[in-house]
Amino acid sequence: MATAAPHRAAPVTNRSQLAAIGPEQLAADFKQVRTATEALAQGLSAEDQNLQSAPFASPAKWHRAHTTWFFETFVLKPHSPSWEPCSPAWNYLFNSYYNGVGRQYPRPQRGLISRPDIHEVAAWRRRVDRAVLALIDNPPAGEFTRLAELVRLGLNHEQQHQELLVTDIKHGFSKNPLHPAWHQPRQPARHDGAPLRWIKFDGHTAGIGMPDDGRFCYDNEQPRHRQIIEPFELAARPVTCGEFLEFMRDGGYEDPDLWLSDGWRWLKENDIQSPLYWQHTDEGWKIHTPGGLQALDPAEALAHVSFYEAAAFAHWAGARLPTEAEWEIAATSRAGSPGPTAESGRLHPAASRPDQSGKNLLADMLGNVWEWTASSYLPYPGYKAPAGAIGEYNGKFMANQMVLRGGSCATPLGHIRPTYRNFFYPPDRWQFTGLRLARH
Amino acid sequence: MATAAPHRAAPVTNRSQLAAIGPEQLAADFKQVRTATEALAQGLSAEDQNLQSAPFASPAKWHRAHTTWFFETFVLKPHSPSWEPCSPAWNYLFNSYYNGVGRQYPRPQRGLISRPDIHEVAAWRRRVDRAVLALIDNPPAGEFTRLAELVRLGLNHEQQHQELLVTDIKHGFSKNPLHPAWHQPRQPARHDGAPLRWIKFDGHTAGIGMPDDGRFCYDNEQPRHRQIIEPFELAARPVTCGEFLEFMRDGGYEDPDLWLSDGWRWLKENDIQSPLYWQHTDEGWKIHTPGGLQALDPAEALAHVSFYEAAAFAHWAGARLPTEAEWEIAATSRAGSPGPTAESGRLHPAASRPDQSGKNLLADMLGNVWEWTASSYLPYPGYKAPAGAIGEYNGKFMANQMVLRGGSCATPLGHIRPTYRNFFYPPDRWQFTGLRLARH
Amino acid sequence: MATAAPHRAAPVTNRSQLAAIGPEQLAADFKQVRTATEALAQGLSAEDQNLQSAPFASPAKWHRAHTTWFFETFVLKPHSPSWEPCSPAWNYLFNSYYNGVGRQYPRPQRGLISRPDIHEVAAWRRRVDRAVLALIDNPPAGEFTRLAELVRLGLNHEQQHQELLVTDIKHGFSKNPLHPAWHQPRQPARHDGAPLRWIKFDGHTAGIGMPDDGRFCYDNEQPRHRQIIEPFELAARPVTCGEFLEFMRDGGYEDPDLWLSDGWRWLKENDIQSPLYWQHTDEGWKIHTPGGLQALDPAEALAHVSFYEAAAFAHWAGARLPTEAEWEIAATSRAGSPGPTAESGRLHPAASRPDQSGKNLLADMLGNVWEWTASSYLPYPGYKAPAGAIGEYNGKFMANQMVLRGGSCATPLGHIRPTYRNFFYPPDRWQFTGLRLARH
Amino acid sequence: MATAAPHRAAPVTNRSQLAAIGPEQLAADFKQVRTATEALAQGLSAEDQNLQSAPFASPAKWHRAHTTWFFETFVLKPHSPSWEPCSPAWNYLFNSYYNGVGRQYPRPQRGLISRPDIHEVAAWRRRVDRAVLALIDNPPAGEFTRLAELVRLGLNHEQQHQELLVTDIKHGFSKNPLHPAWHQPRQPARHDGAPLRWIKFDGHTAGIGMPDDGRFCYDNEQPRHRQIIEPFELAARPVTCGEFLEFMRDGGYEDPDLWLSDGWRWLKENDIQSPLYWQHTDEGWKIHTPGGLQALDPAEALAHVSFYEAAAFAHWAGARLPTEAEWEIAATSRAGSPGPTAESGRLHPAASRPDQSGKNLLADMLGNVWEWTASSYLPYPGYKAPAGAIGEYNGKFMANQMVLRGGSCATPLGHIRPTYRNFFYPPDRWQFTGLRLARH
Repeated sequence: MATAAPHRAAPVTNRSQLAAIGPEQLAADFKQVRTATEALAQGLSAEDQNLQSAPFASPAKWHRAHTTWFFETFVLKPHSPSWEPCSPAWNYLFNSYYNGVGRQYPRPQRGLISRPDIHEVAAWRRRVDRAVLALIDNPPAGEFTRLAELVRLGLNHEQQHQELLVTDIKHGFSKNPLHPAWHQPRQPARHDGAPLRWIKFDGHTAGIGMPDDGRFCYDNEQPRHRQIIEPFELAARPVTCGEFLEFMRDGGYEDPDLWLSDGWRWLKENDIQSPLYWQHTDEGWKIHTPGGLQALDPAEALAHVSFYEAAAFAHWAGARLPTEAEWEIAATSRAGSPGPTAESGRLHPAASRPDQSGKNLLADMLGNVWEWTASSYLPYPGYKAPAGAIGEYNGKFMANQMVLRGGSCATPLGHIRPTYRNFFYPPDRWQFTGLRLARH
Repeated sequence: MATAAPHRAAPVTNRSQLAAIGPEQLAADFKQVRTATEALAQGLSAEDQNLQSAPFASPAKWHRAHTTWFFETFVLKPHSPSWEPCSPAWNYLFNSYYNGVGRQYPRPQRGLISRPDIHEVAAWRRRVDRAVLALIDNPPAGEFTRLAELVRLGLNHEQQHQELLVTDIKHGFSKNPLHPAWHQPRQPARHDGAPLRWIKFDGHTAGIGMPDDGRFCYDNEQPRHRQIIEPFELAARPVTCGEFLEFMRDGGYEDPDLWLSDGWRWLKENDIQSPLYWQHTDEGWKIHTPGGLQALDPAEALAHVSFYEAAAFAHWAGARLPTEAEWEIAATSRAGSPGPTAESGRLHPAASRPDQSGKNLLADMLGNVWEWTASSYLPYPGYKAPAGAIGEYNGKFMANQMVLRGGSCATPLGHIRPTYRNFFYPPDRWQFTGLRLARH
Repeated sequence: MATAAPHRAAPVTNRSQLAAIGPEQLAADFKQVRTATEALAQGLSAEDQNLQSAPFASPAKWHRAHTTWFFETFVLKPHSPSWEPCSPAWNYLFNSYYNGVGRQYPRPQRGLISRPDIHEVAAWRRRVDRAVLALIDNPPAGEFTRLAELVRLGLNHEQQHQELLVTDIKHGFSKNPLHPAWHQPRQPARHDGAPLRWIKFDGHTAGIGMPDDGRFCYDNEQPRHRQIIEPFELAARPVTCGEFLEFMRDGGYEDPDLWLSDGWRWLKENDIQSPLYWQHTDEGWKIHTPGGLQALDPAEALAHVSFYEAAAFAHWAGARLPTEAEWEIAATSRAGSPGPTAESGRLHPAASRPDQSGKNLLADMLGNVWEWTASSYLPYPGYKAPAGAIGEYNGKFMANQMVLRGGSCATPLGHIRPTYRNFFYPPDRWQFTGLRLARH
Repeated sequence: MATAAPHRAAPVTNRSQLAAIGPEQLAADFKQVRTATEALAQGLSAEDQNLQSAPFASPAKWHRAHTTWFFETFVLKPHSPSWEPCSPAWNYLFNSYYNGVGRQYPRPQRGLISRPDIHEVAAWRRRVDRAVLALIDNPPAGEFTRLAELVRLGLNHEQQHQELLVTDIKHGFSKNPLHPAWHQPRQPARHDGAPLRWIKFDGHTAGIGMPDDGRFCYDNEQPRHRQIIEPFELAARPVTCGEFLEFMRDGGYEDPDLWLSDGWRWLKENDIQSPLYWQHTDEGWKIHTPGGLQALDPAEALAHVSFYEAAAFAHWAGARLPTEAEWEIAATSRAGSPGPTAESGRLHPAASRPDQSGKNLLADMLGNVWEWTASSYLPYPGYKAPAGAIGEYNGKFMANQMVLRGGSCATPLGHIRPTYRNFFYPPDRWQFTGLRLARH
């Protein structure tokens, strides 16, 4: 998810590629996702929902409105002739970056939109929901498949914004000295975390990317292609906060030899001395969390580090970041993807549990923290951008960003998969960005 | 009112200087001013009240909280031993710039304070109001005079913030393409405005500044001192929007010879082509007002221009800006200060009515628009800053700013007077800043 | 001398005001001033002469060329029909800010003009000198008076640039860790400096500004006008480095209560901890001088402080800065202007000698350091800007700057006088800017 | 060559990898390269040699001094016990970025170093040259091989700076409205340039990178490794100025759909409307060249475009940029690398000659313009940075930059090869950066 653009990839919309789903399932999925967004906004006041603490973040109210705008623009307007759309000013306010759909309100000023207020946005959501469900129930002749594709797209799009809503409100609250608590996760039983083990992978020629088998994916996950992989080892779990604390205590932030040249300049210009959201207090290190300011748990997976910090840590540890191909091979292997340690909806990284299966499984590949890879975000060989407004900008973010894999504790369940390519600029830290070590 | 500091001057607090007022009058004044603040916030939603559209502006909620903090800090804490103050975090959030009272939350981030919410702030206001009224009713022995001084100070302080609340919310709404209407003034009967007449003043040695006679004033209005005044003429009314439109149509913004050197650079760097809040539309010039976007009225007093624009206009008109001494002499003369043309609470400049008294009166010296003068904001001869936290910074804004006189349509009635010295930086435009011409 | 504009004021060019001087005297003056410029460039290599270390400074080669351009443009072109001017590109490069004479090459890039080189510029100077001298010797009929006015103007203009050449090369060399020595002043006999004494002045109505008596002056020194002066005292000598060191050791740079609000922000944003050119070394404080890096002499007059530092020091010392009227009264009084302590051409501030005349004289009013006053740079009452290209911008710098008086060790002898008004922005420090205390 | 760092890669210094060369050859090579640097500075005045027109560029004098510093620091100091090194201040001034060798003078201020002057630098060069040649002639026992490695490294390093000296002086002169001519290439016979042909390459598994066979190369060209290549086609010559003009006339700079998202922002923020050094005049498009401002030749290879412009052009042309692997395969194939069209030392791109060999050769792969590839600058699989000060930063530039291949008209003959990886940031344009199209 690029700083400048929360939608980073167009889904594959070729209809033959999507497995058939019927109207009941589609309606149920629609209700589930739309309800989940509103659930995230529960407990946030009107002022909370209008916070914008950085140009890269958006207010919760804007996320709620923009995802609704998406359904109105791409589903209702083309398929529901009697639909009465919102005013042109709303269209201007809640378009994100689709040049094909008109001008956009300046992104860094989204927090200045006090009107429409949260009640007007909620009413709009309900009106659009009713219309989309009516359309699913009674589609124009011959249009159901196309409709289903667009709704499916809108739902995946909205899931991406659910994660952004969480990370953006977290960033907003971090500016408030009261450190408001807005989400209390059920705490998993405390344990000391898993020791660091390495899983070996042999060299071979691998298939990378999503096969063309009808499952939903974004266009940047295709075409599937072959790649030569040298033997490597991957850490069985992500790097922890405790390990990063060792790096800090060993002078990691003071030694230029550990850092990429651009990373060192970034560190100096921004006076970086710890991961984002870490605070040193009289009582030791604390972390700003959805539950307020809490003591740092050394066993927890590290999050909110930049690519530069991830690379410097790996260097310090005598290891490196995996390429995205290595990561994908591991995640789709026998050892891979046993799912996250923590329960869903926790909204905070978990401590990886020691593997007691005896099978040398990789822990937490999906759904704990996004893991920086050593790969730049570039097109796969043979990649072609789809045409039209929806696919207008598929490849346009393929410069200056690095690939992250795995999904985080804020990624909606069912949205993530081993071939999923997320991407951010090297300095970005407000997502749940961590890392996993690799070595030759 | 300096950009970085809404309280610009300490009142004269020498008790012998204040006319005696009794507890009933003080309580009545207190209720009137505190209620007026809440009345201004009426009709503003929670999101509206949290808007901050520029570093120099503050959210309405912040103004409501900060003025309350002022009474808690300077009245209740020293005089009400049983008072339970707000939390340290609130103290940090709602202190504005008093170094003597502790650190301050970064001013440009005030819009990021979603909590406490408007209900918590309202409850705090009520709690403080009850306590101050109880204290007035039953002051500790021998402390009433000092208490009255501090309350009077707090009320004048709050009146300054009432004006800022208006100008700040106006600025905030100007960023919203919906141009929300939030205040519908009763329209005065339309008329064509007064023609430009000049009032003559003879040369003489004049007394400038507030005499030491017990009336309330700020310290920067004293000491009263003598100044030699050469003969001059002053325009009988402020410059109008129509006159400024002529300047624009005559290429005023394109001719460097009309501008101060710094003004020309400001104009180029900020691509200035009209006063703030003016918009050229297919239907001609419109102005962003508290009643939404409205057609420009040529007879209305011009507002929202910088000192640079005021000086360039005066140059173009073959005239100049008055010095603050000239302005004060005129306002206190036989011809001066007949009060504003428009009703109170209009929150938008009025068109000056032609003088039909036959007495050659100056119109609208007080209460229509703030008028830029040719004078830098500097101490009067013999000025000494008071000691202590309240007067801590009396003179500290006396650099780089220009004096404005007269008060605007947003200045509370009863707060303004001929000796009142307001001050802003030359480029500032978000206050109701206009001008009146002078010549030799 | 404003940052953006070394010529800050037009001379009074009304011919009746200039005392008659004959051709011989004019030619002698011309040779003296033009030679003095070249003498300053002696000992500077080609690279030295092309240095530009800040947007407000200009290369020595540029000063040499620009002053020549001035004579070519305003003297030779209008009065010498056969004159073949330099190329349009040179005209573009060496015009400074006269909009009436065409576009200007961007000021901050003057250091990028490697060509024409110093030899071409020297040849141009010689060619122009010969032509001007020929014109003086044999002027067109009836044009000598006008010619003399323009030449006189060009010479005063060139003297201003001589001072800038010195301060700009000093600034340039300060960036070189070698601290090149380029000018070795004869050291005056060392002494401990004068103790601080105060000279009293009674209140009265004073005449301020240059009388209209034919002596040369700039337009901003006129009209002479009356001003009421309250009784005051003025320090008999400027503040010394040693006194400023006390201020620093007493925490002057750490106490916000001593500073103007804008000054405190300036200090924080630029991390100011000492006057410009001061360096703390293992051997104590040193100062970058034309003779290289040298030990700080506590008795020397302080220089290279901003208006903010001057005002903070005065506040700390329990005093204030004088107004420009107070300064001028003192300089033209019985006690005033005995001239500088040090020899001419020293190019470094001197230590004021104790007054042994028994007459309570003010030391070093003229020619040691420029002294910040408490006065903003504004027009005198009745000031009118002259017309035409030369006087095009007389008043355009009258905003945001403060007046300095007295001239410095780098000001050419004969160029300075008690009514001379110099002006810079409050943060400017690269001129020899110091201060003298005043009090009520 | 990264903006922040002209030395971008450490040579492979494992002594077994270097083919043996004897003292005579080494001395001859040394003299040739050192003389070539001085030849480039011929015709540049002292002022010219001190120009620095951008933070990424360095003065010619600095290049001459820095390359000398390199030999002193890495060859003479360790191997010549009697060597008397330059002063610490010079060491500080002429170190570029080797943290292991001490602090560095701020890069953007190199143009402020007027002293030492060009004569002192020339004398230092001669002194170092004599000492190095003496050392080669009579090396300490057993140290010749190591010495030869270091000298070889210093020579390759100096060749990189020769190219930078050319591009930096070109950039410097572009700021001068006189457009100084400083190098007149012999013009090749004019011709219309080669038409665009495509050369086909089959898919296969290829070896990429320099084999470990003793030839000199930088560490980033190794390890050689296998990569799967899909079938592709490559243009037989680089894109021409005329083709880019068509792109411009077709609105290429106005259509956001052609651009990467970051590229569009770069274009808007910098108001980019043509390649660097292009000027639209009354007589049509002109280009700033070493021979002054000259008419654009449509047949010439395009240079001075950013990666963003290269990618947008390729998009517009219905093609894409090649990956660096595709480029390397082509350059090492039967069809590849016939060398540049133009003579050496031309310092300006040439028009590719039509291939008349009948062999479908690729023109100008080496030595006309650097060609942007679609590949980010990342380590090859298994890459390890060498240890020590020389290799201190081998990998530290591997972020945010793109690979360029082929060398330019300013690259010294013999310095370039098909495996050579150059790298710059996507917006960089002051090198001779062009492109060659590829397609599937």
